[in-house]
Amino acid sequence: MLNAAAEFTVNDRYYRVPARPVVVICIDGGADEYLTAAMCRGRVPHITAMSARGYRGLVRAALPTFTNVNNASICTGLPPSKTGICGNFFIDPDTGREVMTNSTRYLRAPTILAAAAESGRRVAFVTAKDKLRAFLSSGLRGIAFSTEKADEARLPTHGIEDVESMVDESKPSIYSGAASVFVLRAGAAMIAGGKADFLFLSLTDYLQHKFSPEEEPVVEFYEQLDHEIGRMLELGAVVGITADHGMNGKHDGAGRPQVLYLETELVARFGDGIRVVCPITDPYVVHHGALGGAATVYLPSGLDRAAVIAWIADLDGVSEVYPRQLAARKLELDPEHVGDIYVLATRDVVLGRTPADHDLSGLDRPLRSHGSRYEEMVPMVVSEPLSAEYRMKALGDPRNFDIFDFVCNGTDVVTGTAGQE
Amino acid sequence: MLNAAAEFTVNDRYYRVPARPVVVICIDGGADEYLTAAMCRGRVPHITAMSARGYRGLVRAALPTFTNVNNASICTGLPPSKTGICGNFFIDPDTGREVMTNSTRYLRAPTILAAAAESGRRVAFVTAKDKLRAFLSSGLRGIAFSTEKADEARLPTHGIEDVESMVDESKPSIYSGAASVFVLRAGAAMIAGGKADFLFLSLTDYLQHKFSPEEEPVVEFYEQLDHEIGRMLELGAVVGITADHGMNGKHDGAGRPQVLYLETELVARFGDGIRVVCPITDPYVVHHGALGGAATVYLPSGLDRAAVIAWIADLDGVSEVYPRQLAARKLELDPEHVGDIYVLATRDVVLGRTPADHDLSGLDRPLRSHGSRYEEMVPMVVSEPLSAEYRMKALGDPRNFDIFDFVCNGTDVVTGTAGQE
Repeated sequence: MLNAAAEFTVNDRYYRVPARPVVVICIDGGADEYLTAAMCRGRVPHITAMSARGYRGLVRAALPTFTNVNNASICTGLPPSKTGICGNFFIDPDTGREVMTNSTRYLRAPTILAAAAESGRRVAFVTAKDKLRAFLSSGLRGIAFSTEKADEARLPTHGIEDVESMVDESKPSIYSGAASVFVLRAGAAMIAGGKADFLFLSLTDYLQHKFSPEEEPVVEFYEQLDHEIGRMLELGAVVGITADHGMNGKHDGAGRPQVLYLETELVARFGDGIRVVCPITDPYVVHHGALGGAATVYLPSGLDRAAVIAWIADLDGVSEVYPRQLAARKLELDPEHVGDIYVLATRDVVLGRTPADHDLSGLDRPLRSHGSRYEEMVPMVVSEPLSAEYRMKALGDPRNFDIFDFVCNGTDVVTGTAGQE
Repeated sequence: MLNAAAEFTVNDRYYRVPARPVVVICIDGGADEYLTAAMCRGRVPHITAMSARGYRGLVRAALPTFTNVNNASICTGLPPSKTGICGNFFIDPDTGREVMTNSTRYLRAPTILAAAAESGRRVAFVTAKDKLRAFLSSGLRGIAFSTEKADEARLPTHGIEDVESMVDESKPSIYSGAASVFVLRAGAAMIAGGKADFLFLSLTDYLQHKFSPEEEPVVEFYEQLDHEIGRMLELGAVVGITADHGMNGKHDGAGRPQVLYLETELVARFGDGIRVVCPITDPYVVHHGALGGAATVYLPSGLDRAAVIAWIADLDGVSEVYPRQLAARKLELDPEHVGDIYVLATRDVVLGRTPADHDLSGLDRPLRSHGSRYEEMVPMVVSEPLSAEYRMKALGDPRNFDIFDFVCNGTDVVTGTAGQE
C-alpha cells in the first residue's frame, strides 16, 4: 500500500494525498533571492525545471519571521495565533520569568504529519536541528530524527535507526550547510528504500546567516540541495519547497551591525522596569547573536502605553509598532504570548535588548538576520502544475503554511497517476 | 566626444559616468516574480547573463508604490519627501480641491537627466506614457519623447523627430505591451545611431496589471524586452534595470476584486465630511479602476483623529495606519501632500473611496494592482560586477532610486574601459 492515495482532515482542512511520494521542504532562511541567484547561474536545474513546469511564486510567512514560529505553522497549516508558537520566548505573567515556548507543551494543534500517519501514509519528519524535531514530532507515529542527533535515532523512539549508514555519511556539524544536505539525502534514501512516502524536511539557515545570495558557498549549497531534490523527483515524488523566513543584511555600508537596543533606549527614556524580549533567542545563536527584526516590550504598570508606543514609532530603525491586542489581530499572534507592545524593525536593522544581552563575538561576517516584515515574503515552488482553483489562490495571498495544502490538493496528480497504485 | 566619461553632482550626490553608453530602465510594475518566471522558462537570456555576471537583488521602492512617485524619485535620486511627488493627488488645504501633482510645477528638485546633459552627455528620456515624459523632462537639454506621442516629437521641443522612422514602427497603442517594447527599441536605435549615450527608459505596466507572472503574454513581453536589452549590451552599454513598484493580485479565490471602500466605511461610522483620496488615480485607469494599496484620509475638524486611526487599524484589509506627521517621517512623504491619516492595505486588498468613484467595468481579468508595502520590494539588475563598496551597499537597504548611483558609481567600468575613449 506504499504510496496509496490517502485522505484526512486536520485543523479544519481536508488533505487528499496523491498516490505518489509527497515531499515538503522548508529551506530555513531560504529567501527568494538565494533561489534566484543560484538559478541565474544555472546551478539549480531541477528547481528551475520544477518552477517552469509547476509553479514558483511568493507566499507570505507568519510573523515574526522566525524558524520555530513558521515550522509550527507549516506542520499544522495554522497561523501562530492558533499554534501557540509565536516566538521562542515570552514572559509568564504569573511568574515574571521568561519561558521558552518551542516545546510540545505549548503546541496547541495536532500536526499534518501525525494526521497523515493516521491516514496510513508512512511519514518521515527530518530536521537539521534536534530541538525542532523534538517539539513538532509530538503525536507522530512515524519516523522523526535530526541531523544533529542522527546517531542517536533508535527504532522505538525515532521510528528509524542506523541513519548514518542509510545516508552513507557521518552526521555533519549542525553549524554547516552539510547539516541541511544530510536532511535531504536522508529523505531521498527513505523514499528509495520504501521507508517513507510523506515527508517533511526542514533545514537550517546557517549558511544564509553567513553569506549573501550570490556568494559561492551558498550557491554551491543550493546546487547540492538541488541535486537531492532531483533524486526525489526521479523517484516520482511530488515536491513542494518553501521557507520559514527570508534573510537580509543588517549592517551599514562598512559592514557594522545596525542594532537598536530597545530596552536600553526605553529605560533611558522612561525608567527602570521595562523589559524587552527578543523572540529569536534560542540555543543556537552564534550566527546572529539573538538579534532579529522583531521584539516585544513589557511595561511596568503605571506607564502610559500610548506615549511609549508613539515614542518607539518615531525611532529610526523601527517600522511598525502595535499595542498587544492589535498585534495579536494584525500579526496573527496569541495575545498571551505578546508583551504590551510589539515592534518590527526596518529592513536593515535588528532589535536587541541591551548590549550586554547579545554576544556578537561569533560574527565573522556582516550580520544577516530576520524576524521583520522584510523577511515575510518567501518562495513557494511546486513540482506539478497547479489546478485552476489553486492558481487563483496562489495569486491572492497564499501562505507558506499552505504548502501541504498546495502539494496535496493543488494539483491533479491523484487522477493523473491513479493507474500506478 | 560621444561616450566620454563625465561627472556631475546633483541633489547632493556625485555621479561619475562611465565612458560607455549608460542605460537605466524602469520596468513599470516589474515585480521580481515576472523576471523570475521568464528566467526559469529560459526566455530572458540577456537579463539572466547580466544577473550572473553583474548583480541582481531586491531594492526598496518609494511608498506609496505608484508610478509617478517612483519615477520622480529615480530621476532625482531622492525620496518623495524631497521630490514633492508623493502621489498623483492631494487636497489643497486652501481651496479644498483635489490637485493633480504629476506636474513639473510640483517637482522640487532637478533631475539627474538634466545634470547629465549639462555635464556633456547626450541624454535621452523615453517613456511609454506622455504625461510622465512631460513632467520629468523639465530642464533637460536633450531628447525626451513618449511612445504615446511618438509621432508628435519635434526637434525644437523633443530634441528629436521622425521617431517612428528611426524605430521602424508606427507607434503602438498605449494600452499594450508593445508601447513598452517601442521605448526600448527607440533606446537601442538612439545608441546605435549615436544620438544618445545616457538614457532613461521608462515603461508601462499595462500587461502586468492584466497578467500574472507565468502567463504567456507577459512572458513573451519580457522576452521582447530582453531582446532589446541584448541589443543595448551588444552596443557596449552599461545597463541597470529596476521597477517603480511590484504588482499583486487583489482578488479573492473566485477572482472577484477585494476592495475596501474606505470613505464609505468611514462616513457610515463617523459621519459626513470625511474625504478619502486614492493617490493612484491618473488619466490611465482602465486597467485598475483607480484602486491601489494606499489611501489618505482627510478629516473634518472636531473629529478625534486617534479614535479614527484605531478604528481603521482594526479593519480587515488594512495593514498599516499613520497620522500625518508619522506618515511623513516613516514613509518619506511630504506632510503637506498627506491627509490627516495615511493607510496602507494588505497584500490582496485595494483601497477605494466609494463604489461610485471607481469604474471596474474595464476589468476583463482578475484585478492586479499596487500601492502598498507589498509592492515595495522590486528587482535591481546591473550588467557589470559591483565594486566591494556597492556590493556592501546592495546588501543593506538599497533603493530603486539609487539605480543611477549604482550604474554610474557602483562598478569599475570607467577604469576598465578608459582605453576605449
